[in-house]
Amino acid sequence: MLREAIYHRPKNNYAYAYDEETLHILLQTKKNDVEKVSLIYGDPYDWQDEKWNYKSSEMIKSGSTMEYDFWFATVKPEFRRMRYGFHCSDDKESIIYTERGYFEEVPADTAYYFCFPYLNKADVFTPPSWVKDTVWYQIFPERFGNGDPSINPEGTLEWGSTDPTPTNFFGGDFQGVIDHLDHLVELGITGIYFTPIFKAYSNHKYDTIDYMEIDPQFGDKETFRRLVKESHKRGIRVMLDAVFNHSGYYFPPFQDVLKNQENSTYKDWFHIWDYPVTPEPKPNYDTFAFVGSMPKLNTDNPVVKDYLLKVARYWIEDFDIDGWRLDVANEVDHAFWREFRSVVKDAKPDAYILGEIWHDSMPWLQGDQFDAVMNYPFTNGAIDYFGKNEMSAENFASSITNVLHMYPKHVNEVAFNLLDSHDTPRILTLANGNLDRVKLLYLFQLSFIGSPCIYYGDEIGMAGGQDPGCRACMEWDETNQNRDLFEFVKGLIELRKLEPVFGNHADFRMVEANNDQNYIVYEKFHADKTLIFILNNSMDPIQVNLGQYGPCNEWKLEDMSSIQKQSVSDLSTINVSPLGFRIFEQ
Amino acid sequence: MLREAIYHRPKNNYAYAYDEETLHILLQTKKNDVEKVSLIYGDPYDWQDEKWNYKSSEMIKSGSTMEYDFWFATVKPEFRRMRYGFHCSDDKESIIYTERGYFEEVPADTAYYFCFPYLNKADVFTPPSWVKDTVWYQIFPERFGNGDPSINPEGTLEWGSTDPTPTNFFGGDFQGVIDHLDHLVELGITGIYFTPIFKAYSNHKYDTIDYMEIDPQFGDKETFRRLVKESHKRGIRVMLDAVFNHSGYYFPPFQDVLKNQENSTYKDWFHIWDYPVTPEPKPNYDTFAFVGSMPKLNTDNPVVKDYLLKVARYWIEDFDIDGWRLDVANEVDHAFWREFRSVVKDAKPDAYILGEIWHDSMPWLQGDQFDAVMNYPFTNGAIDYFGKNEMSAENFASSITNVLHMYPKHVNEVAFNLLDSHDTPRILTLANGNLDRVKLLYLFQLSFIGSPCIYYGDEIGMAGGQDPGCRACMEWDETNQNRDLFEFVKGLIELRKLEPVFGNHADFRMVEANNDQNYIVYEKFHADKTLIFILNNSMDPIQVNLGQYGPCNEWKLEDMSSIQKQSVSDLSTINVSPLGFRIFEQ
Repeated sequence: MLREAIYHRPKNNYAYAYDEETLHILLQTKKNDVEKVSLIYGDPYDWQDEKWNYKSSEMIKSGSTMEYDFWFATVKPEFRRMRYGFHCSDDKESIIYTERGYFEEVPADTAYYFCFPYLNKADVFTPPSWVKDTVWYQIFPERFGNGDPSINPEGTLEWGSTDPTPTNFFGGDFQGVIDHLDHLVELGITGIYFTPIFKAYSNHKYDTIDYMEIDPQFGDKETFRRLVKESHKRGIRVMLDAVFNHSGYYFPPFQDVLKNQENSTYKDWFHIWDYPVTPEPKPNYDTFAFVGSMPKLNTDNPVVKDYLLKVARYWIEDFDIDGWRLDVANEVDHAFWREFRSVVKDAKPDAYILGEIWHDSMPWLQGDQFDAVMNYPFTNGAIDYFGKNEMSAENFASSITNVLHMYPKHVNEVAFNLLDSHDTPRILTLANGNLDRVKLLYLFQLSFIGSPCIYYGDEIGMAGGQDPGCRACMEWDETNQNRDLFEFVKGLIELRKLEPVFGNHADFRMVEANNDQNYIVYEKFHADKTLIFILNNSMDPIQVNLGQYGPCNEWKLEDMSSIQKQSVSDLSTINVSPLGFRIFEQ
Repeated sequence: MLREAIYHRPKNNYAYAYDEETLHILLQTKKNDVEKVSLIYGDPYDWQDEKWNYKSSEMIKSGSTMEYDFWFATVKPEFRRMRYGFHCSDDKESIIYTERGYFEEVPADTAYYFCFPYLNKADVFTPPSWVKDTVWYQIFPERFGNGDPSINPEGTLEWGSTDPTPTNFFGGDFQGVIDHLDHLVELGITGIYFTPIFKAYSNHKYDTIDYMEIDPQFGDKETFRRLVKESHKRGIRVMLDAVFNHSGYYFPPFQDVLKNQENSTYKDWFHIWDYPVTPEPKPNYDTFAFVGSMPKLNTDNPVVKDYLLKVARYWIEDFDIDGWRLDVANEVDHAFWREFRSVVKDAKPDAYILGEIWHDSMPWLQGDQFDAVMNYPFTNGAIDYFGKNEMSAENFASSITNVLHMYPKHVNEVAFNLLDSHDTPRILTLANGNLDRVKLLYLFQLSFIGSPCIYYGDEIGMAGGQDPGCRACMEWDETNQNRDLFEFVKGLIELRKLEPVFGNHADFRMVEANNDQNYIVYEKFHADKTLIFILNNSMDPIQVNLGQYGPCNEWKLEDMSSIQKQSVSDLSTINVSPLGFRIFEQ
């Protein structure tokens, strides 16, 4: 057994409190190297006749990447304390892996073992329970619907009359969203994520001028309050975008600094290097990227902190919003986010806190900061495999297994699983216009673990390249909409609600990844039901042997809104059409 | 190269902000497997001609354990942001290791790389600077000195007249400490760690009755205030023991629960399973271990939290103490410790927060909770090797290298390095009475990275087994003290102050660990000075070849209070006497 590949370290994805009485334990070993792993565990203080009273229980191989196998166990320690180690064996040897290294015999001293000292309720990661069953819809408000032309900004163009540019305006507003809530209800949406709505200069509104005001082109506070109410009436929750890393150029405190320089009372609101402060030719203050018009806020300044935390509380308490999506969340200090969480959860205990982080986010997902991050590692794998067909089946299976093992299970259950956004090309464009690929993407996304999000217009087949291309006006003319795709997505969302094992109330396991024929097989399973998915990612028909399964019922989804089942006695010869899929239930 | 052994994950000991402008990056590879590692790094937003503007810089091999090599780099990213990967090579292959796995070529997309998104000042781990240069002395107040017999508790025995038992009393008190401060000054001590001093039932006082009162057997608040003042006058800081995991049986809130049961206003101060609450035959409430007389406090209850935080603030603000040592710190919730840190640092920004944790403590040492933990991984290695001679030189070198790589550098610099305590046998007893082994232990401890602590009486050769044996009365009769040992320890402490490279202002590196002859060689080094230590852990004379070094000066420490140097032109034949040591300077 390859000792150097064995890895475990407590208090992250490898050992965590899943709930107030349950610990999850994960071990990494080299792929196909260890035959059996047992968890050796017990209460650190439970001794009998001067011997530690430990138990041993076999771990389950929960997945494999290209390099590693992962082994998983669930334990409910009676007194919420645990010391533990791992007994790894194959036909040749048997070793005990502990915090102090490797041993041939089970060490007698509990001090040698890994420690989960106490499962304290206060430290349990507890995301809002509703997120698990939410299907999100992302709206870029300038481009979803123009319901009140009277508040069009100057120079507003006719809806959809031309391509989007970084600077043009089409007059999208809150009334436009209210007018089209039925579209969301029909699709089955239960959450809206709005990109910024506060007073700002640009069409994307990421350059905030006033965090306490609605941008007048979208409506006023009463319209927004009505939008939230109408959404809630329809079972739809509302999440706003908090751009707290940086302000906009026209944010009055920054303008005051530009005007009054060293004498400005706001000079400590930013990170200024020297005076005179100037955005040109290069800003001499911290910025988002190198964008002089987006000065980084000093979230370590108590005055700034108070202001932003007041903002966080205000929109929850006065407008009843249900969550905050945090822009460029990884560049703001952890200390600020801890206070932010405390304020938000005080205002609304089940509010959702979602960070925009594109890389490994474990340091933000320990229960003290965010509930979730935008799950780009999921996005990357799904797009590269199903969308672009640029990744092998095995690499895809590896990357998805990695996604599921890089965070705790309850973090994955509320991960914000997007396929695209206002920051990426649209999926139809990524898939080079291939609607079957888009359908595979949706099938995978909507049967996966997490909280899926649909980018406005994707569901009716809108195309669009990298920003600004992906920010076109929503197509409301049904004759120009792809209603077949809409029905397909709507059906999948319905399945997610009808069948908990299809949805977010089951475990996920990769069963097969076939590079030659370019397909994957995965399972969703719960106590007494397993769904088996075969997704053919190739342009050719394939034949798959899943003879290891007994007689099954196949799901026939001609009418996506209900599940018709047809019995199949033998899964050893399954044909799947090019870019097609089949689902079996056992 | 063995890919499966390569490991890195940001925001712990592998990647952290060392100060407001410096990042430290660490990589693990299989031992003796990779020949060269270069860090590939750059600002995520720094692109030129559509290419990422990255740099490459060679990493230093900073140490090896039995299984792994560690590679280290220091970077000062101009804009405090960094994406990075690792270029590992040997004579056969060359691979790039990133967050998304292994590549043969340097990936063009920054999104593939590891990310340290922003070095925010608010998140930098900043321990108090004085701790680096402090030498601690641990006092168990019931046994250090009886300076005021008028407050002796009932049944007090004559000082040192008999062996300590779990229940006897000898009348140690604050006046006794004040009377003997000169002993500490002579030894060179600059910090006292007191085990609990608050009103309690037992002789060890870990069963608190009143966190706001001094135990009357030690004196009153005025005496304690005087003790702190007198210590400060002599340049000695004072740290108290905070027993916040559990209260004592006679803590009035717990007594109230026992008396009034469900009707007690204090019932939510503890974790009660059912009523009637009873400590017998088994407690039906959470406890420390299974000790019914130590009920676990509910630190998630805002009233309890307020009370304990008031305690934390009171002894700092009203008595000017300099630090808190936190008993059973790992079993209290992280959320409580975060608030605790905020209160303590508000009361005294450079107070030291030291957690009692015996295992890997990375989750508590990220800057938001503790400044340090009691460094038992250091203790274990040192005792097993020098003290008991039960560990091989190679295993010792491996364990010490592991200690230095399991936490960030600035965490190690303030680690509380103890050799023994009131919870373990004394070092002389662990070393089976061998004073040379005790001297090697002190030499290693006092030349190592961290904040060393001497357990009262060890320095004059007191022996004693596991508690209560290790808690004997301090020997004040000089004819019964080992003055030679005292002079030796005093000399080492003096060296620590005279020579920063001997002390805590240098790096440490294991040079050789020889199992056959049972010795180790290590270096302490800084910009232009290196000290080379040879410690012979065997009962035989050894001959060591350190011919790789050029001409050196040897330290002759006949008079430990000054460094006499003698030049040595050739280090290829160094003789070291049994259990002896030699130190060279280059």
